[in-house]
Amino acid sequence: MAAAVDTERFLRDLDDLREIGRYKTGVHRPTYSPQDMESRRWLMARMEECGLEPSIDGIGNVLGRHRGPGPHLLVGSHIETQSHAGWLDGALGVVAGLALARAGLPVDVAAFADEEGHFEGGFLGSRSIIGALSDEEIDRSRNRTDGTPLRDALAAAGLAGLPRMTLDRDRYRGFLEMHIEQGTQLEGAGERVGVVTGIVAIWQWRITVEGAQDHAGGTTMAERRDAGLAAVRLLAAIDREFPRVCAERTTWTTGRIALEPGAPSIIPGRADVLFQFRDVEVPVLERLETTLRALVRESNRRERCTATLDQMSRATPALCDPGFMDALAAAAEARAPGQWRRMPSGAGHDAQWIGRVMPAAMLFVPSIGGISHHWAEDTKREHLALGCEVLADAAARILSR
Amino acid sequence: MAAAVDTERFLRDLDDLREIGRYKTGVHRPTYSPQDMESRRWLMARMEECGLEPSIDGIGNVLGRHRGPGPHLLVGSHIETQSHAGWLDGALGVVAGLALARAGLPVDVAAFADEEGHFEGGFLGSRSIIGALSDEEIDRSRNRTDGTPLRDALAAAGLAGLPRMTLDRDRYRGFLEMHIEQGTQLEGAGERVGVVTGIVAIWQWRITVEGAQDHAGGTTMAERRDAGLAAVRLLAAIDREFPRVCAERTTWTTGRIALEPGAPSIIPGRADVLFQFRDVEVPVLERLETTLRALVRESNRRERCTATLDQMSRATPALCDPGFMDALAAAAEARAPGQWRRMPSGAGHDAQWIGRVMPAAMLFVPSIGGISHHWAEDTKREHLALGCEVLADAAARILSR
Repeated sequence: MAAAVDTERFLRDLDDLREIGRYKTGVHRPTYSPQDMESRRWLMARMEECGLEPSIDGIGNVLGRHRGPGPHLLVGSHIETQSHAGWLDGALGVVAGLALARAGLPVDVAAFADEEGHFEGGFLGSRSIIGALSDEEIDRSRNRTDGTPLRDALAAAGLAGLPRMTLDRDRYRGFLEMHIEQGTQLEGAGERVGVVTGIVAIWQWRITVEGAQDHAGGTTMAERRDAGLAAVRLLAAIDREFPRVCAERTTWTTGRIALEPGAPSIIPGRADVLFQFRDVEVPVLERLETTLRALVRESNRRERCTATLDQMSRATPALCDPGFMDALAAAAEARAPGQWRRMPSGAGHDAQWIGRVMPAAMLFVPSIGGISHHWAEDTKREHLALGCEVLADAAARILSR
Repeated sequence: MAAAVDTERFLRDLDDLREIGRYKTGVHRPTYSPQDMESRRWLMARMEECGLEPSIDGIGNVLGRHRGPGPHLLVGSHIETQSHAGWLDGALGVVAGLALARAGLPVDVAAFADEEGHFEGGFLGSRSIIGALSDEEIDRSRNRTDGTPLRDALAAAGLAGLPRMTLDRDRYRGFLEMHIEQGTQLEGAGERVGVVTGIVAIWQWRITVEGAQDHAGGTTMAERRDAGLAAVRLLAAIDREFPRVCAERTTWTTGRIALEPGAPSIIPGRADVLFQFRDVEVPVLERLETTLRALVRESNRRERCTATLDQMSRATPALCDPGFMDALAAAAEARAPGQWRRMPSGAGHDAQWIGRVMPAAMLFVPSIGGISHHWAEDTKREHLALGCEVLADAAARILSR
C-alpha cells in the first residue's frame, strides 16, 4: 500500500486553517470560542471533500470516518489553541490526517477537544472518547481563565445535548499523532523528524499561602504575615533543591503567582501559585513530590504564613507502542536517512489518552527556535511536508502488516 | 476657647457613614464610585447641619467653610477607601472635623480625593488644592485596577468642568488630621493616642522582567528564559540583602507579582512586580535604592532575562510642625496622662501635602490588631471618642495662641 501525499495541498490546508482566528503570525482559537467552532466546521467540510464521513459530538470531538473496509488507523490531534498561540501545534496533526485520507489510506481523522486545557481537567475530547470523562466532571469543570462553567460553554457552542462518541477499539490498528517538537533538540542537532518514545507525565500543583492582609506602611517587618514573601521564599527553595533530585530531562515551572489583593501599598494576605513538574519516570516524579512536600513543611515551620499543597493532576507517563515506533523509525530512515532520532515528549498530548485503549505513537517535526504556545511558533515548510510523508509511509507500513 | 465635643454624635456620624458602601464590617468606597460620591454628598449635608458652607470641586475635594471670623484651622482627611477596606481610615479624620465644627471651633472641614491612590499619582485632592497636580497629569492618569482614564471617571461622577479649589493659605493657622495608627505600637504599649512626628516617604518601583514565553514541557531547563523564575530570584535577593542596609523602622513590600500569560503549562515570558520601601530618613531611602539597583544589575549579569527598574514615586519624608505637635502633646497629656507617645507614621497621608504650604500635624488612635486596608479594621469606641477630644483640645490651644 504505497501512499503518495499531496504535500502542496497539505500545506495549503494548513494555510487556510491559519486564517481562522489569525493573531499576528499565529492564531487565537480558545476551546469552544467562535473561532474554534469555525475551525471545526471548516474541518468537517474538508473531511467531506476527501471522502470521509464527518461528525461532531457533545464534547466537541470531530471525527471523519473512512467509508471503505478496514483495517483502519486513527490519525489526528486537536484543533483549538492556547491563547494567542501558534498556527501548527495540534492543527498540524489533524491536517496531516486529512492528507493521509486524501492519499487514499484507510484512516479516520480526529480532532479532539480542549487538549490545551482551557477548561479544568483538560484533554476533554480524548478522555471523553475513551470513557475517561464523567458527566459529573463535565458538570464541575470551569474555564480556567474566566470561570465560565463548561456546560454553559458547550451550550453557547451549540453542542449541548449531542451524544458523546465512544472509540470503536476493534475498528483500529491504533492511533498516530504528528506534532511539532515544542523544543530545540531536533533543530539543535540538525535533524528533521523525531520518533517519540513516550510522553512525560505532568504533576500539577496549586500552592496556596495564607497570611494577613495589612497596611504596607503601618505594619513593621516583624509584625507582618506576608503571604507573597512566604511564597517567594518557598519558590526560591524549590529553585535551590529541585536540581539536586531531578533527572536529566525533568522540567518544573511556576506558571502563575497571584497575590491578593495585589495593590502596591497592601501586604498580600494570600498567594496563589500554579506549579508543575514533568518527567517520564514515575520514581523521579515521586522523588520530586517528596522534596516539594518537605519544602512546604519546612516553610510552614519557618514562616508566620501557612502554605497548603493541592495536587491538581497526577498523570502516569505514557510509553509509545514499540511496533508503531519501529514503523515510524523505518519510514524516517527511508525519507530522512540519519536525520532523525528517538526522543521523549516533554509535553502532554492526546496520544497519551488514546494510547490507553489501543497502540499509539507520535512523530515530531522541528520547532524553529523551540518557540511554542506563542504566536511566533513556526516550522520550516520542508519539515512539515517531510513529516507528513514520513507519517503516511509509517501508516502504510502499519496497515500492510 | 474651651471645646466640648459631642462624642455621642461624633460616633453616630461615623456609624451613619459606615452604611455607605458597607462590606461585611467594613466599607467599599473606591474613589469616584457611586458609593464614594454618595459619601461626599452625605458629608456636604452634615456640613450644612453644623453651619459650614459646603462645596465640591473638579477633583472631588469637599470643603466646608466656617462662616465666622478667623483665625481658622483646617481639619480633615479623605473619605474614599481602599477596596473592601475599613470603616475608619480617612473617614475618621473627616468626621472628627465635623465634631470640632459642631463644638463651635472655627474650623474648615476637608475631605480630599483619592488619598488611597486608586488612580495613578494618588493624593489627587490634597495635591490639587496646593497646586501640585497639573491638568496634564489628570489627562494621563488612569485607574490602577481597571485602566479607566481619570477624566472619564470624573465625568461619570459628575465632576467634569467644575473648577479646582486652591487652598487660601492666609485663612488658616494650619492643618490637623486625625487617623488610625494602622499598626500595633499603641495597642502593644497599652497607649491611647499617638502624636505623629513625621510621615515616612514611599519610594515605589515597578520591576519588569523580560524573558521568553515558551512551552513548559518542550523546553529544557537549560534552554529557558523564565521571567517568573528570574523575578523570584531577584525578590529573594532583596529579602536577603535589605535587612543589612535598612533602618529600625524601614519597611519594604512586594504588593503585586503578575506573570504573563499566567497559565500552568506556559513558561512566563514577562513578570511585572510592584515593589516599594518606606522610611523617614532620606539617606536610608537612598541606601535602599543603591542596594536595589545593585541587585537588579546583579540579576541582569546572572540571568538570561532582563530586569528593568522604573521609579513610580519618590516622595520626601514630611515632618510635622513642632508647635502643633506640642499642642497635641499637651492635649494628650491632659486627657490621657502617660498613655500617649510621639511616633512616626509609616503610611502616607494628606497631611504630608498640606504640610508643604502651612503648618500641619497628625494624631493617631490605636488600631485593633493593627489591621488596616482590610474590612476587619477597627478601633475601640472609647479610643475614637478620646482621640476626638484630644484633637479638639489641641485645636483650641492652637487657635487661642
